[in-house]
Amino acid sequence: MALADVRALTFDVFGTVVNWRDSIAREAQALFAPKGFARDWHAFADRWRARYRPAMDRIRSGEREWVKLDVLHRENLIEVLEEFKIAGLSAAEVDHLTRGWWRLDPWPDTVEGLNRLKRKFILATLSNGNIALMVNMAKYAHLPWDVILGSEIARAYKPSPEAYDRSAAALDLAPGQCMMVAAHPGDLQAAAGRGFRTAYVDRPFEGGPPRPNAVNGTHGFDFVANSFTDLADKLGC
Amino acid sequence: MALADVRALTFDVFGTVVNWRDSIAREAQALFAPKGFARDWHAFADRWRARYRPAMDRIRSGEREWVKLDVLHRENLIEVLEEFKIAGLSAAEVDHLTRGWWRLDPWPDTVEGLNRLKRKFILATLSNGNIALMVNMAKYAHLPWDVILGSEIARAYKPSPEAYDRSAAALDLAPGQCMMVAAHPGDLQAAAGRGFRTAYVDRPFEGGPPRPNAVNGTHGFDFVANSFTDLADKLGC
Repeated sequence: MALADVRALTFDVFGTVVNWRDSIAREAQALFAPKGFARDWHAFADRWRARYRPAMDRIRSGEREWVKLDVLHRENLIEVLEEFKIAGLSAAEVDHLTRGWWRLDPWPDTVEGLNRLKRKFILATLSNGNIALMVNMAKYAHLPWDVILGSEIARAYKPSPEAYDRSAAALDLAPGQCMMVAAHPGDLQAAAGRGFRTAYVDRPFEGGPPRPNAVNGTHGFDFVANSFTDLADKLGC
Repeated sequence: MALADVRALTFDVFGTVVNWRDSIAREAQALFAPKGFARDWHAFADRWRARYRPAMDRIRSGEREWVKLDVLHRENLIEVLEEFKIAGLSAAEVDHLTRGWWRLDPWPDTVEGLNRLKRKFILATLSNGNIALMVNMAKYAHLPWDVILGSEIARAYKPSPEAYDRSAAALDLAPGQCMMVAAHPGDLQAAAGRGFRTAYVDRPFEGGPPRPNAVNGTHGFDFVANSFTDLADKLGC
């Protein structure tokens, strides 16, 4: 199947589309600073995020039944609050901060790039975020998705094969008609393993201090771009 | 829960958002006229649509496992082709005409109305159409959905209670935070039975010859509108 057969772009979201680290640090500071807590809120965001993969791994391994990412985010928040010795939050405040993941800022090129790509392709989320999280984030950040796919539709977390297979099936497309867009080589490699095309978009500031571009001349991805507008250029949008 | 708590509008699509009858008649004529078949293509559309409810009823009753509406549409097409004594189509042509349901025209007020309503509400499909059908129709007709919900997410066909319950749950909303928008009183009554708010939009030409407004002063719906732009007016959008 040729590159010209691609009909849908399927997007990783956290880190690729939105800047979770600065956004979560802002959310934490906004809640805690008026209460007199002084912490490194970027470190808080990093520690919260670090609990994401182990929590999903328990589901991917079959140790635990599938639950929404909102549920994992809330459980992990309880732990990170203990780690940072922050106590006294109401349940409503814990819910509010958990839903900080619904209020993540896009990278500067995200919205323009997506709107250009949308003219030519179906734009689908293929994220581990659940439907409510993705929809509310889209309203907040003006992300023009055509369809929310990913973990809640597939009942599987990336990089499990079912996450990719069931997303393509929901679109009634062959895997080769879908192109995964992500800033994370592992996600792209897993998608390629299921027959997807791949586009790497470099997001050097996802983790804070700039990181080196994760790919080189021998990466094997179909496209390598440094922004969504660059990807739109490369895809003729 | 007050009307002001409504966060999402959940839409019936066939008949409410798009004019399936004229669109399917056009699709049939475009395929068959060059082949020399002369039929009443609106009657063809009506007979095809008439097989929709009985086919779903077999799933709603548990007699058959859930399958996508695209599958039911194709099976029903085979039957209606026999009824109209049309033979000799290739499998690709049967697929193409089945996907005529992906290419339905909106009512004249649909796109403007949805774009206005989108400013204030989450716009979700709550249709019996499957994800691929809804996404491709949205691309074709420029329908600005925030999220595709409905039968494929819920694995249940309306008016089964699960179709409504699981759509609200996917949005992480209480039923009373959702308002069903439909041109069909039965759909609205089923939604209301699950706690949804309701908005009736009159579509007098869905069936061809104008039909009387299905509701009257004692209808019990929260809103009654004669178009999506009228509904936007009434909801302050």
